[in-house]
Amino acid sequence: MHLQLWFLLLLTNIVLGDYWLKRESFIEMENSQMLGGDIVLTEKEKVVNAFLMEHKRQEYQNPRLFLPSMHFFDAQPLIEKSTVFEFIKLMPKGAALHGHTTALLSSDALYNFTYEDNLYACTVNNRLKLKFMQNSEDKHCQWRLLKDLRKNNSSYDEWVRSQMTLVTDNPKKKYPNIDTVWEELENIFVTVGEMITYRPVMEKYFYQALRELHEDNVMYLEFRGQLRGIYELNGYTYKPTEVAKILKTITEQFKRDYPDFIDCRFIFAPNRNVSEETVAEYVKLVNALEVQCPDFLVGFDLVGQEDKGKPLSQFIAQFQNVSSTINFIFHAGETNWYGTNVDLNLLDAILLGTKRIGHGYGIIKHPLLLELAKQKEIAIEVCPISNQVLMLVEDLRNHPAAYLIASGYPIVVSYDGPSFWGSKGLSYDFYMLFVGVANKNSNLKLLKKLAKNSLTYSALPETEKQLGITKWEKQWDAFIDTMYNKISKRGF
Amino acid sequence: MHLQLWFLLLLTNIVLGDYWLKRESFIEMENSQMLGGDIVLTEKEKVVNAFLMEHKRQEYQNPRLFLPSMHFFDAQPLIEKSTVFEFIKLMPKGAALHGHTTALLSSDALYNFTYEDNLYACTVNNRLKLKFMQNSEDKHCQWRLLKDLRKNNSSYDEWVRSQMTLVTDNPKKKYPNIDTVWEELENIFVTVGEMITYRPVMEKYFYQALRELHEDNVMYLEFRGQLRGIYELNGYTYKPTEVAKILKTITEQFKRDYPDFIDCRFIFAPNRNVSEETVAEYVKLVNALEVQCPDFLVGFDLVGQEDKGKPLSQFIAQFQNVSSTINFIFHAGETNWYGTNVDLNLLDAILLGTKRIGHGYGIIKHPLLLELAKQKEIAIEVCPISNQVLMLVEDLRNHPAAYLIASGYPIVVSYDGPSFWGSKGLSYDFYMLFVGVANKNSNLKLLKKLAKNSLTYSALPETEKQLGITKWEKQWDAFIDTMYNKISKRGF
Repeated sequence: MHLQLWFLLLLTNIVLGDYWLKRESFIEMENSQMLGGDIVLTEKEKVVNAFLMEHKRQEYQNPRLFLPSMHFFDAQPLIEKSTVFEFIKLMPKGAALHGHTTALLSSDALYNFTYEDNLYACTVNNRLKLKFMQNSEDKHCQWRLLKDLRKNNSSYDEWVRSQMTLVTDNPKKKYPNIDTVWEELENIFVTVGEMITYRPVMEKYFYQALRELHEDNVMYLEFRGQLRGIYELNGYTYKPTEVAKILKTITEQFKRDYPDFIDCRFIFAPNRNVSEETVAEYVKLVNALEVQCPDFLVGFDLVGQEDKGKPLSQFIAQFQNVSSTINFIFHAGETNWYGTNVDLNLLDAILLGTKRIGHGYGIIKHPLLLELAKQKEIAIEVCPISNQVLMLVEDLRNHPAAYLIASGYPIVVSYDGPSFWGSKGLSYDFYMLFVGVANKNSNLKLLKKLAKNSLTYSALPETEKQLGITKWEKQWDAFIDTMYNKISKRGF
Repeated sequence: MHLQLWFLLLLTNIVLGDYWLKRESFIEMENSQMLGGDIVLTEKEKVVNAFLMEHKRQEYQNPRLFLPSMHFFDAQPLIEKSTVFEFIKLMPKGAALHGHTTALLSSDALYNFTYEDNLYACTVNNRLKLKFMQNSEDKHCQWRLLKDLRKNNSSYDEWVRSQMTLVTDNPKKKYPNIDTVWEELENIFVTVGEMITYRPVMEKYFYQALRELHEDNVMYLEFRGQLRGIYELNGYTYKPTEVAKILKTITEQFKRDYPDFIDCRFIFAPNRNVSEETVAEYVKLVNALEVQCPDFLVGFDLVGQEDKGKPLSQFIAQFQNVSSTINFIFHAGETNWYGTNVDLNLLDAILLGTKRIGHGYGIIKHPLLLELAKQKEIAIEVCPISNQVLMLVEDLRNHPAAYLIASGYPIVVSYDGPSFWGSKGLSYDFYMLFVGVANKNSNLKLLKKLAKNSLTYSALPETEKQLGITKWEKQWDAFIDTMYNKISKRGF
């Protein structure tokens, strides 16, 4: 940076006349500073990149149909027609580092579980609740078999589907402000919470979530959850450590079925809107989980709407008791507020030594924090579609990650809760970031860097991380070969 | 900065335990880096500041009624009830450095000119055109006296008013995208263009524009315009140098009438959407203006929607011929695009040696440029309401000036075109920036710095600038005294 700055000053002090030379040098310098600017493309990659950029330019042809400016609900069908999107789908994207157990799956796959046997439904305050039971003996609600309710009633089925997603024709009308969209998100959990925590469904759900990532060319998942409330029809409820073991078993099964997939790790992430006593309990639990499942648990976090939840600063004393071998991987700064307890979560996360920052949307307003975080190589998990749907930003060209990318800050792209907004895997978020947040001229170098970052900044132990990176590099080279051959034959 | 960074690293390496000390130090460091962080408040200012901040905090009480998150058209009546706004109105704000001749005045004052004698109206494609004439002999249009058309026809009058403003009940519906709002802005000019260029009206208009600034406790104006098409009823059209002299005469008259007002200077700013030949003509004209009106003309700029206009890079050769004593004060980066010819206007503006940057909305996406501009002390003219109404950003909490303020970048606040959106003077924009863009804890230091910056970064010659600053300091001290006395008596 110092050398660059010196160069800059030199540039602007020399005589006029060589204006275009100065201009070119500056643009080159800017490009080299960007995230991925240090990557040198191979000859094959250059060919693939030329193809990619030819298609990327087309995304800007009609400024009134620029997809990252539109709401994702409107843009999604159009994104699916994009060659850039198709390219991104095929690309080995490394790891998904920010996703929640309650919403890892695509909407369609989630909905399919409503056809499982023994699923009962009841309606409380116009809200559908779903639960697996042996019979309808629970007197708290008028439970009926969903199978019976939906028989010959397609409008009921449509309503069931609508209860499981934020997707709607007119999001601005349905969600006039950020609180309404968060409330609806919590309502969805009321509907599906007990459907997806039924142990046999949970197993299928988790396996399918891994499969969707694998199909999207993602090889590793680090997900946040609570491991709570997993039940059997007979009423048995599993302990968190038991749930961890079930998930671990499924992961191992999945790795055998799909050897390309390297692994899956867990961040214990209960709700932030609790008392200090409850956080102390969380801490005991996460320490116990680490002892019992050391190859599964990698981190600790608190989740829920930051604007309305407790700030990290309230639990500093409790956090001191988290085992030093467990990473803090905190959500922080998922807010538009500035100078409040909410965006100061960023400061606490960093002072507490967080390994990464979930969202970090507001960090741009804290340049010193940003500098500190960059020195400490704290990656930021950017989830563009989530930020748009949850109403932090409307036009994704205003997303602050543009600054992060421009200044070479280590970010990773993730999906947060695809079930909620009807996306699937990481490709939609990659598309939005690559086309709408990054520079129009950002190219394959950025995509490669983002994919590699997702492994570099994962919480995998060092040896496994290196193995993972080596595996990803092979996938990447194979992808480039395939693309190169397709392009050479004009077959893409 | 180096010292700070060293301090930061030191802070984060020391042992835990003194967590709260570290946290406090960090927040202090952040505050000191912010714009205005170097200002030391006097004892009286501290009292006034405490009062201001007590009321500022109230602005955040109801997050669903946070005015800078709302569209200005909805927020305006609520802003007018705010004590913070009332405070800002009374505060000596220094200079308005970014405003266009076509829209300097409040909507009401503009509308009042429709009651002048000899004003004719005609309607072409549902668009009202207004023009002063001796009679209706112009056969290109069916001109009728506006006085006759509006007689006993209040709905016609309402329509006339609606043709002169962007203000509407449902802006999102009326302006589905940025181009539609710019088109309407250009339509307004079709309506009012020949009303405000009639010499007697132009004189009153300009005097009134200065009066509105003076009433808003602004003491200096630097405005952009073309000096074109000023006419008499007899058909005579004034040359630009003649218009400059008329405006200069009015300025001198105004300074005599209001000795608090220090001066007014002009930035020649014709439309950017022209050929290279036309820009060469502009350059000749601006050079001539400087020779003939050296105490009036201070700068050169090109204006119009950047997204659709020609980039600065197209006219580099022509710009070389601008007299070296004329400042470039370019509009640049008034866009959401990134990596296009449009946002690269920022690079060209800076390489060309611009004194300030108009809007600079996109500069956040160019960190190296930002660093360079900061080194060269190029102030950015931030016009928050304009950026919202012209659809660069919806919720002003996402305005990139938050970063500029946080990093101590020299910005000034301005109003761009108050006629278009129904504001008046600088206070509305100051309010939006102070409450919605800046840190919740940003206080009187920021306001004082913004006011002083507006003189420091003006294009006034050095001696006059120093006189102006001295005058402003007196106004400021008087304001603090008044506020202090009011607060002491609980009379505000």
